Amino acid sequence: VKTFLVTGAAGFIGAAVARYLVGKGNEVVTVDNLSTGYKEAIPTGVEFYEGNCQDEYLINQLEKYDFEAIFHIAGQSSGEISFDNPIYDLQTNTQSTLLLLKLALKTKCTKFIYASTMSVYGDAEKLPVNESMNIEPKSFYAVGKIASEHYMRIYQNYGIRSSALRLFNVYGPGQNLENLRQGMISIYLAQAINNRHIIVKGPKERFRDFVFIDDVVNAFILACENLKDIFCIYNVCTGIKATVEEVINIIKNNLDFPIDIIYKGSTPGDQFGIYGDASLFKRATGWQPRVNLEEGLKKMIAWAINR
Amino acid sequence: VKTFLVTGAAGFIGAAVARYLVGKGNEVVTVDNLSTGYKEAIPTGVEFYEGNCQDEYLINQLEKYDFEAIFHIAGQSSGEISFDNPIYDLQTNTQSTLLLLKLALKTKCTKFIYASTMSVYGDAEKLPVNESMNIEPKSFYAVGKIASEHYMRIYQNYGIRSSALRLFNVYGPGQNLENLRQGMISIYLAQAINNRHIIVKGPKERFRDFVFIDDVVNAFILACENLKDIFCIYNVCTGIKATVEEVINIIKNNLDFPIDIIYKGSTPGDQFGIYGDASLFKRATGWQPRVNLEEGLKKMIAWAINR
Repeated sequence: VKTFLVTGAAGFIGAAVARYLVGKGNEVVTVDNLSTGYKEAIPTGVEFYEGNCQDEYLINQLEKYDFEAIFHIAGQSSGEISFDNPIYDLQTNTQSTLLLLKLALKTKCTKFIYASTMSVYGDAEKLPVNESMNIEPKSFYAVGKIASEHYMRIYQNYGIRSSALRLFNVYGPGQNLENLRQGMISIYLAQAINNRHIIVKGPKERFRDFVFIDDVVNAFILACENLKDIFCIYNVCTGIKATVEEVINIIKNNLDFPIDIIYKGSTPGDQFGIYGDASLFKRATGWQPRVNLEEGLKKMIAWAINR
Repeated sequence: VKTFLVTGAAGFIGAAVARYLVGKGNEVVTVDNLSTGYKEAIPTGVEFYEGNCQDEYLINQLEKYDFEAIFHIAGQSSGEISFDNPIYDLQTNTQSTLLLLKLALKTKCTKFIYASTMSVYGDAEKLPVNESMNIEPKSFYAVGKIASEHYMRIYQNYGIRSSALRLFNVYGPGQNLENLRQGMISIYLAQAINNRHIIVKGPKERFRDFVFIDDVVNAFILACENLKDIFCIYNVCTGIKATVEEVINIIKNNLDFPIDIIYKGSTPGDQFGIYGDASLFKRATGWQPRVNLEEGLKKMIAWAINR
């Protein structure tokens, strides 16, 4: 039996990764501060430490484990929200990474997978973006993720084998529908179901690269199984651009009731349009996204309606 | 009378900038934690707050001032030392910048000049380095400086006009000769004078771009006077590469007593060789370095011997 640390297992992505690992017969430990996640979302069987990953005292308590790998997924995950309290964002997304890398080194855990973000690219000059392109972060959130990536590169000198997954727009069942500032699809869907309307902050021509949660779990697992001796950065995306309008139309067409669409305002630090090239990740790990947007949204809507 | 905030005025560069500003009849306020600087080094007339720039409570106390500009120069300044305590480094070099940018915004101070570093380039592929080149930081110190630069870019959206000066190897009278892990020239000189020998960590073929303290003070002043509406990053360097061997020979030739040179070990996160291209900064501000290495070292040696 192997033991894994999955930070943030009360959150959307962390819970899904933890559930997969538990399902495969592994032991899983998690740290989560329940700031946006829910205790009930933590999969059964996961050993839970409540607190912050930027808390040195708490992280030191994990030295007793012999982790096979660390999946660092916890952290405030919205560019918009990072403007509310940039200091907290720096601590949760960056200081946490330093402490966990130090833990990895101290406990001789040489595998480290990190949830980074496509936000690091900012308004990319060329699309689709690839990992060698210039980065120009537009939010405090993205700045902290970049710093974490750099830390991982430094730790490769100590034998920590790590990969940063630059996740594009992850969506699917299990996403938080209570937080109306985080996750484009979950925001739209929550409004549609609860209020029978969607308020869209920004133009409908904006576009994103939406990747389904099951494909993202698979990405974490394959990244861990295919770590190189050097630090690697990978885009995790479908390569397909979907506009806000397309997303809204799919939602509309799959609901049993009519909804209104209201365009109003914009979001600080938001990117206009971005989609990515995941060929580096596919070549390195054999990963392929398997669920397309229409299919994924249908699953998510069915889940959201039946909750 | 204008009022300036110069953080780190008990340190080498901060003290020199503060002294210049006071000499021109300005009021100067400083925050310094005296961790590597000395209270006696703070120029006469400077209003002193003892504490950390990453301390929100302390920084909030500065809201009563009407600053003309903020020079953020405080911070742990050694790549090597940043490996001892990366968390402290993140706080002193990065969290501090967030708090000071917030202060600038709150107090409507629109001018912000930051002491960044050539360390951000890491082992540059091409020399001399310029500001548009890829960055690959090799120390926690450098990672924190990069994050600070990104924060400044984000704050340009709020009307904060800022420049980051990527300082190369600054040296001269006033540099700390007690700290044997910080500042290549000051380390060598201190050893030569105190121990009659120099221990060189790393090969003598390594090279740097040494810039004299008076030229650096001038760089801060000109950067402040020539701020653009957008965030700018500038190299502050001479464009001349000097090897470790050349530095040691100048020191040897300007001392009245013989010294031994001992080559031993290396330093984590150290760059092998780097020198920079400052043409962007020269064009933008008219800055020119005026003191060459031999001349500057003679001044520094005279100062060090007569202390």
